[in-house]
Amino acid sequence: MSFHAAAFIATSLDGYIARPDGSIDWLTTRAEQAGSTGYDEFLASVDTVVLGRNTYELARTFDEWPYESKQVEVLSTTLDPDADDRILVHRTLNALVETLNDRGAHRIYADGAATIQTFLRAGLLNELTITTAPVLLGAGIPLFGDLPADVPLTHNATRTLKAGFTQSDYTIKR
Amino acid sequence: MSFHAAAFIATSLDGYIARPDGSIDWLTTRAEQAGSTGYDEFLASVDTVVLGRNTYELARTFDEWPYESKQVEVLSTTLDPDADDRILVHRTLNALVETLNDRGAHRIYADGAATIQTFLRAGLLNELTITTAPVLLGAGIPLFGDLPADVPLTHNATRTLKAGFTQSDYTIKR
Repeated sequence: MSFHAAAFIATSLDGYIARPDGSIDWLTTRAEQAGSTGYDEFLASVDTVVLGRNTYELARTFDEWPYESKQVEVLSTTLDPDADDRILVHRTLNALVETLNDRGAHRIYADGAATIQTFLRAGLLNELTITTAPVLLGAGIPLFGDLPADVPLTHNATRTLKAGFTQSDYTIKR
Repeated sequence: MSFHAAAFIATSLDGYIARPDGSIDWLTTRAEQAGSTGYDEFLASVDTVVLGRNTYELARTFDEWPYESKQVEVLSTTLDPDADDRILVHRTLNALVETLNDRGAHRIYADGAATIQTFLRAGLLNELTITTAPVLLGAGIPLFGDLPADVPLTHNATRTLKAGFTQSDYTIKR
């Protein structure tokens, strides 16, 4: 494996990336006041984005395609491979990884809970930046899921943003 | 309501306070190297501790009773009221709150996930300090649970401890 995969994602303090219906109003309303989150620098550092179907469907609804100039790989067993010429659809993680290696992908942005969980379970995630919003939602789509074993982390840095957000960087230990 | 209730609790990065079987080996092994967490100062600041049955049963197993010199109230529908003369057993939250008010409890330590969730749902929690261990467990007993509505928080401070722990203080907005 020659690529480096990183996640950069926001959650509520109780660990949800979205409400049960997928909405992120609790995040967007607060994020406007958060100041610089470092996301632009992060996005500029990656050449490839990996998404699951749900994150792809959300990204499609944005006024502007959020992954412009990136190679975008979507991991989905159901999405039509010809649906969108901005993306490449992969049916399995193995097929995705083969493509990433063949293409010499260097730095990968693993976006969305499904992709992050898949990469964590497969030992493919290298870094994780979590931005925590100052709210408890009580229900939603959790960032994390089942794991085959404990995943120990190295904590690199934590910073306090505006509007009550905090942000922590971790490296996944091998 | 004249008392002030605070939680001071550690979780894994994926939000668990214990493994599915209740064990906290992932925490204790790391916490030895964390340095000062401020827990002693926190404990010294409270006059009353509120526990659920699970946290009480865990505390009983410690070499030393961890709530010495505190008034300890246990919220449990099943625990024998005469089981332990170091505690007072309450069958309902209303009965507990009545006792706290009658006794003029001032500053309360809400300990354990069940109590913290009960207090959050009832709008009785004022402050929350979460210490996050640098590990993903993948499964366990979650700190947070269902809520009747969003609970917005004010972020007060975040600090980095040793051994990769971080710690954040929040005030629950009213």
